[in-house]
Amino acid sequence: MILLDGRKTSSNLKFEIAEEVSQMKLSGQSVPHLAAVLVGEDGASLTYVGSKVRSCQQVGFESTLLHLPNTISEDELLKQIELLNANGSIDGYIVQLPLPKHIDENKILMAIDPLKDVDGFHPSNFGKMALEMDTFIPATPFGIMELLERYKVETKGKHVVVVGRSQIVGRPMSILLSRKGNPGNATVTLMHSHTKHLSNITQQADIIVMALGIPKFLKADMVKDGVVIIDVGITRVPSDQNPKGYEILGDVDFEHVAPKSSYITPVPGGVGPMTIAMLLKNTLIACKRRQN
Amino acid sequence: MILLDGRKTSSNLKFEIAEEVSQMKLSGQSVPHLAAVLVGEDGASLTYVGSKVRSCQQVGFESTLLHLPNTISEDELLKQIELLNANGSIDGYIVQLPLPKHIDENKILMAIDPLKDVDGFHPSNFGKMALEMDTFIPATPFGIMELLERYKVETKGKHVVVVGRSQIVGRPMSILLSRKGNPGNATVTLMHSHTKHLSNITQQADIIVMALGIPKFLKADMVKDGVVIIDVGITRVPSDQNPKGYEILGDVDFEHVAPKSSYITPVPGGVGPMTIAMLLKNTLIACKRRQN
Repeated sequence: MILLDGRKTSSNLKFEIAEEVSQMKLSGQSVPHLAAVLVGEDGASLTYVGSKVRSCQQVGFESTLLHLPNTISEDELLKQIELLNANGSIDGYIVQLPLPKHIDENKILMAIDPLKDVDGFHPSNFGKMALEMDTFIPATPFGIMELLERYKVETKGKHVVVVGRSQIVGRPMSILLSRKGNPGNATVTLMHSHTKHLSNITQQADIIVMALGIPKFLKADMVKDGVVIIDVGITRVPSDQNPKGYEILGDVDFEHVAPKSSYITPVPGGVGPMTIAMLLKNTLIACKRRQN
Repeated sequence: MILLDGRKTSSNLKFEIAEEVSQMKLSGQSVPHLAAVLVGEDGASLTYVGSKVRSCQQVGFESTLLHLPNTISEDELLKQIELLNANGSIDGYIVQLPLPKHIDENKILMAIDPLKDVDGFHPSNFGKMALEMDTFIPATPFGIMELLERYKVETKGKHVVVVGRSQIVGRPMSILLSRKGNPGNATVTLMHSHTKHLSNITQQADIIVMALGIPKFLKADMVKDGVVIIDVGITRVPSDQNPKGYEILGDVDFEHVAPKSSYITPVPGGVGPMTIAMLLKNTLIACKRRQN
């Protein structure tokens, strides 16, 4: 069993990006600039955005945090989006979700200039991904593809089961792994809340991507020997044994599934750390596209 | 075994559309107007476009055929596209593929105004489809969804196998059937040229969509009893027995598979006739959107 180590891989990737940024500086180019829009004071969102900004500093990017009050109107937020689209010094930006309920998230996402949409959530970027055109791949699926590639996990002709059809993980994952290319060319089955006889199919899978959000859902008797496991779940559960008072659990019963696996991502330290690294990579790509 | 009769369904649908167009005329609204761009003299393309124009006449639409010479340059074609985008009297248009080799098809498709893209091939429309937003669904997959709906074929929780990952049929079909809604909510497996042990999985399928283009590929021993079969294949093969000198074959060995099926589309007369009807429906939708 080999651990797919997201911490190490993400740190290697950040190192490579930082190297490239140094070279850009040396040759007199402007460095990538990522902006983040945060509305309100949601605790988890503050943490995520904070860590994105810190990662920018680690690799030498410029970063801008636009922290707006919870009371902002949809129109005012749209004006801010227009300013970001027009701002020539910003290569890419993200709008941290969720937004307050009085704001239509789709309307905001649709207003982002696709060329600056480093989250890859705009329909035109999502469509390009599905149509195998050059675009931004959403960060979490992109991070999984990067892990599979760096660990040389064979996907061609393999049966992949993706559990969960969310727009940010399950759906794009199912598309990416069945596209042409490497990683890719897999036979992909997409499962969700309406799926019947789920374990009949997971037992046949060569690779399982769990993106359901139910702790320890995937048990050892639901997989075959030698399976590759990608666990996207991160659920906080109260815990007496952890000094923080909670622990982070994945969708996989790691203790019992790991011994049967050929490769498996730990939680935490698997897919999670890759996500921010891929957001940086998308910003670097956006910057290079704009300079060409 | 019940035949999913595309001829009858398509003719019902055209009748409904014609009724709606009559109402539009009576209330003084302008009727839907579809334009088709045809470059060169390819025989099959001439036939397809001709039949699209005739169908417009049948339902009372206006239609315009823009027939351009094979020697047209990419720039000149792009100018024609701009004119169609700007033309306020045209609700939707299609560019008949394939285009001559000196023209970049993606570049042309990207230039079509997504609001007039009644083929649903533009990335922003394709992305909206995948993200479950309101958009134009490509005509062939849309026609299959319509057949499933009108014949009340249950898809929720069913295991659907789609064979073939083309951008106009297999890929969108796999997305549509795994989306929320009805038809939809199915567990979908997408197969293609790299798939191994294909019949192991088709034997488990409740519904099989064949979009491979290999005549009689799906045999009776590859399916279970009661399966629903959607056959998108249309391959011309030479035939002495047919006065035309050829016959049209689907991807399914109909003679032997039909007796095991609960529902099956014939070829010809199944999915084929639905495609043009759905193009008309998309044009009607485009027209109503523009008038609102």
